[in-house]
Amino acid sequence: MNTATTPEAALTDHQIAELAQQLRVDAVRASTAANSGHPTSSMSAADLIAVLLTRHLHYDFDHPELAGNDHLIFSKGHASPLLYAAYRAAGAISEEELLTTYRKFGSRLEGHPTPKLPWVDVATGSLGQGLPVGVGVALAGKRLDHLPYRTWVLCGDSEMAEGSMWEAFEHAGIEGLDNLTAIIDVNRLGQRGPTRHGWDLDAYARRIRAFGWHTVEIDGHDIDAIDEAMAAARTTRGAPTAIIARTRKGRGVAAVEDREGMHGKPVPDAEEAIRELGGVRNIRVEVRRPPAAERRAHGGDPRAALPVYEAGGDPVATRTAFGEALTVTGTRREDVVVLDGEVGDSTKAELFSKEHPERYVECYIAEQQLIGAAVGIGVCGWQPYAGTFAAFLTRAHDFIRMAAISRSDLNVFGSHAGVSIGEDGPSQMALEDLAMMRAVHGSTVLYPCDANQTARLVPAMADRAGITYLRTTRGATPVIYGPDEEFPVGGCKVLRSGADDQVTLIGAGVTLHQALAAADRLAGEGIRARVIDLYSVKPVDTQTLRTAAEVTGRFVTVEDHHPEGGLADAVLESFGNGHPMPLLTRLAVHSMPGSATPEEQLKAAGIDADAIVAAARKLVAS
Amino acid sequence: MNTATTPEAALTDHQIAELAQQLRVDAVRASTAANSGHPTSSMSAADLIAVLLTRHLHYDFDHPELAGNDHLIFSKGHASPLLYAAYRAAGAISEEELLTTYRKFGSRLEGHPTPKLPWVDVATGSLGQGLPVGVGVALAGKRLDHLPYRTWVLCGDSEMAEGSMWEAFEHAGIEGLDNLTAIIDVNRLGQRGPTRHGWDLDAYARRIRAFGWHTVEIDGHDIDAIDEAMAAARTTRGAPTAIIARTRKGRGVAAVEDREGMHGKPVPDAEEAIRELGGVRNIRVEVRRPPAAERRAHGGDPRAALPVYEAGGDPVATRTAFGEALTVTGTRREDVVVLDGEVGDSTKAELFSKEHPERYVECYIAEQQLIGAAVGIGVCGWQPYAGTFAAFLTRAHDFIRMAAISRSDLNVFGSHAGVSIGEDGPSQMALEDLAMMRAVHGSTVLYPCDANQTARLVPAMADRAGITYLRTTRGATPVIYGPDEEFPVGGCKVLRSGADDQVTLIGAGVTLHQALAAADRLAGEGIRARVIDLYSVKPVDTQTLRTAAEVTGRFVTVEDHHPEGGLADAVLESFGNGHPMPLLTRLAVHSMPGSATPEEQLKAAGIDADAIVAAARKLVAS
Repeated sequence: MNTATTPEAALTDHQIAELAQQLRVDAVRASTAANSGHPTSSMSAADLIAVLLTRHLHYDFDHPELAGNDHLIFSKGHASPLLYAAYRAAGAISEEELLTTYRKFGSRLEGHPTPKLPWVDVATGSLGQGLPVGVGVALAGKRLDHLPYRTWVLCGDSEMAEGSMWEAFEHAGIEGLDNLTAIIDVNRLGQRGPTRHGWDLDAYARRIRAFGWHTVEIDGHDIDAIDEAMAAARTTRGAPTAIIARTRKGRGVAAVEDREGMHGKPVPDAEEAIRELGGVRNIRVEVRRPPAAERRAHGGDPRAALPVYEAGGDPVATRTAFGEALTVTGTRREDVVVLDGEVGDSTKAELFSKEHPERYVECYIAEQQLIGAAVGIGVCGWQPYAGTFAAFLTRAHDFIRMAAISRSDLNVFGSHAGVSIGEDGPSQMALEDLAMMRAVHGSTVLYPCDANQTARLVPAMADRAGITYLRTTRGATPVIYGPDEEFPVGGCKVLRSGADDQVTLIGAGVTLHQALAAADRLAGEGIRARVIDLYSVKPVDTQTLRTAAEVTGRFVTVEDHHPEGGLADAVLESFGNGHPMPLLTRLAVHSMPGSATPEEQLKAAGIDADAIVAAARKLVAS
Repeated sequence: MNTATTPEAALTDHQIAELAQQLRVDAVRASTAANSGHPTSSMSAADLIAVLLTRHLHYDFDHPELAGNDHLIFSKGHASPLLYAAYRAAGAISEEELLTTYRKFGSRLEGHPTPKLPWVDVATGSLGQGLPVGVGVALAGKRLDHLPYRTWVLCGDSEMAEGSMWEAFEHAGIEGLDNLTAIIDVNRLGQRGPTRHGWDLDAYARRIRAFGWHTVEIDGHDIDAIDEAMAAARTTRGAPTAIIARTRKGRGVAAVEDREGMHGKPVPDAEEAIRELGGVRNIRVEVRRPPAAERRAHGGDPRAALPVYEAGGDPVATRTAFGEALTVTGTRREDVVVLDGEVGDSTKAELFSKEHPERYVECYIAEQQLIGAAVGIGVCGWQPYAGTFAAFLTRAHDFIRMAAISRSDLNVFGSHAGVSIGEDGPSQMALEDLAMMRAVHGSTVLYPCDANQTARLVPAMADRAGITYLRTTRGATPVIYGPDEEFPVGGCKVLRSGADDQVTLIGAGVTLHQALAAADRLAGEGIRARVIDLYSVKPVDTQTLRTAAEVTGRFVTVEDHHPEGGLADAVLESFGNGHPMPLLTRLAVHSMPGSATPEEQLKAAGIDADAIVAAARKLVAS
């Protein structure tokens, strides 16, 4: 059978059912050819995707960049064989690519979808992330761009246990995102056995309705019912819709249908399975074209002046300079959107909201949805800046990790770094964030020490590809740089330097000021110390560090962070590939802090000027 | 007024209201003395805590270790002034300690509660964690220990936005934890302004009820209503209870009551506030004693034999050895509880469930609740092992960070480390977990390369204080060690060694085998390579590494992890305090992987034997 269809000639239910069988056969064929993958998780949702593709999705596969295109996100990313089979049915990829490259080295058809494919918005595969990102995409369409597209998210039933899903249900419900549809494939079986709720569709519906959604419960293998539910989703106003579909995992193949132990592996007998499914088909679907729509042009006043602070004047907190510079960055670039985790008064992101309220998204205390929304808004061509206390970014670690796989351009800010916050104690102190953010693939990590430096780095974040992180400090720090100083990403500042320096002191943020004080005291003792401000923690200024090592041979690094994965490790990355290393003493927060004043904290942690002086003295004497 | 009361002489509503005023006054006094803290967030919940303390809590403050004691967790940890004021009222701490040490250096009365205090189960302050931990405590009482205690968790309304709260509602609802009560202090104001739902108590009740809880909506300043709700919570069977209390932030002080901008700071005029609240009181509460109860003794057969694997025999996956050794560890020690994130068939934790089903807790795909439950179960004297795919532990990063502040003895396992998993692609690959787990305060990080080594390390985890992490590999690896070999934590194995070694190759897990192969090939070229198996990534065997540096002067580290924060950085920690460093080439996963076979992945990442040979050759020639 080889039927070319067009939207004008609407497909019959029978033809759609045939398409669903084709999707199943192709999922079986692809995973058998790859000898791995998730055919059974694909087969349960095949009817849902067949109806979506033929009757409800508006998408131009030749022009994935079109502003009017719907968005289709597989939150259950392991059902990639189904997604790729749908791409084949839509003519976007060939049968050959599907059958010979799936899960192979160098292929764009990876085990879980990634944006290597032009039709994939974001990488999925860590469950519970597709819906939060979908909320961001829908939010951009409804609130920022006012575009007519819909966002369809295929969810698994297992991932309903993830808290991030409920952050998403809450955010979308409150915002009334009626351009968002969650399609929940309730096939009753998770990876290791039955899910909590089995086929109790109402258990899901009750919960989701309580979060302000419209819900429809259907037989997920009934073409008519699916069609009606999707039509209802498209016409429901004021609330997002969840289509809760009862399905059978491995549907259509007796050896695997609704059986435990059949997750994530090819069917045992592919030939027999294909026979049962009615054989190979070559149905080609003409997906409905999107309505003509223009994405709004992002203007701005590039000459808007960054805030300037008087060098040597009153100390200023870098978080304050961040908020002020972010506000100006929003004036310069009208594509900047700021997302807050209900602490904008502390991070100072709130300043942006006063000037640009229409581009400020309050995500409340839901850090996973915060980053998910930022990624989704970024998919739509905006420049997101998302942040909270740096300590609480750990809450969104998996979302940030996945954003890197999604090749997102995402700007993350975290305030209240380190023990220097003072009395609030360790729960509020970020002491692991540099380790976390440095280990993110392709990330940039910035940690300014003064207000003018911060102001320069904030707009630079948006010019940087990938995940860019800025760490700010709660307390006021001296302004040591003039407003015209440049701070290139990947650079550093040598603040004290001589040809016969004996030791190099390296700090960033609060500890840079301690290093300067230490250098002055060491000079009084006749010890000549070079001082480096390592504001760009990643990439690090390899050349300057190597030169310092050659001249002084001795480094003291000092950081308001646990000893692992932070500044010292960043410094040592410059000495890979067999480059001679300096002697090094690393000062960092080794013990568990409690409550204390900022000064007491720095002293107790051994990262204040006293500790630096003692370490440098000892190192020089050694 | 100075009234000593006893449970025998039941307090009148008026006396309880007076106690509530005392708690408010003390919260005001403590935060004013400290010049920081959260009095207004304490004042909203004062009546709730006053009723709990006088009429419903069963707790012996002189014997916090008693098995029958109730558990009181402040999920809204910033209300610490209220908690400490309650401790004072119960006679557990003195007025002097409260007024002179709160938030001071060295104090046990930290800005947010920690177990430095004997009555605090776990550190809170990162919102949305107290309830998930409380679920673990209640689960231990109901399902593991069969003890009569109740768990009371004071929650804020802002933290209801956290997905982890809904993971907790789901888990507790499904388990029917009628020994758990969540008291939600709906004071309508978050940190930066109004919450999403304001005083719409039903918005919370609807959602929580949908998750299978019993809910009661009350005026949180009505002593009678609070009393009735708590009595109902104690008598409700088959479901946990949520008391949803409408309160006013800063209640009782006109200058701050129900006003925005009054979060997290002392009241502006403490004297006036205390006057308004009726002055200082010294009411002393005799809290009801717990029922006599014994915690179950944990036996076990310490002679149960660990699995042994034939050296040089069939390759075995370390995840398989992990599951088998974990099962035996559970036979040896009946205090071991295993928690799974719905991937036990992959991590092989499932093997434990076959032998010890009563000590296996399925947490489904809810990694935050997984770690929260483990911490809570650990509070009750059990030895929890909790795990999932190592990549998805990032989901619980903040919970693990807080567990360290809680001084938890927590064993974490993560499987499917690195690119070596193969076709599934980057979403499933842990490439940041070593950086994450190393930076956790006081953590231990283990990464075995063979089955016998794994088997030895699994029971050793339980003997180790703090957070202990074991990283396992998906694919089978050669068995290179005999079953009687010892693997002390903090040690390493030198597998190839000679007095005139020219270079040291350091690997762990899959890369150790690549290092061995490389050493053999280098020997063929006349290059003598020492090989170190760094199975203990933290603490690291400093002495052996220093000796290797002295002898060979050159290191090649090779790790299936991103370059930042992993094995290479662990190795370099041995050379702090000015110890001379070796020349180092670090091989790690620098690029973003896709799908491919395990062998192709290692090659593409440049961490296979070929890459090691090339790096060593170059380093030796330099």
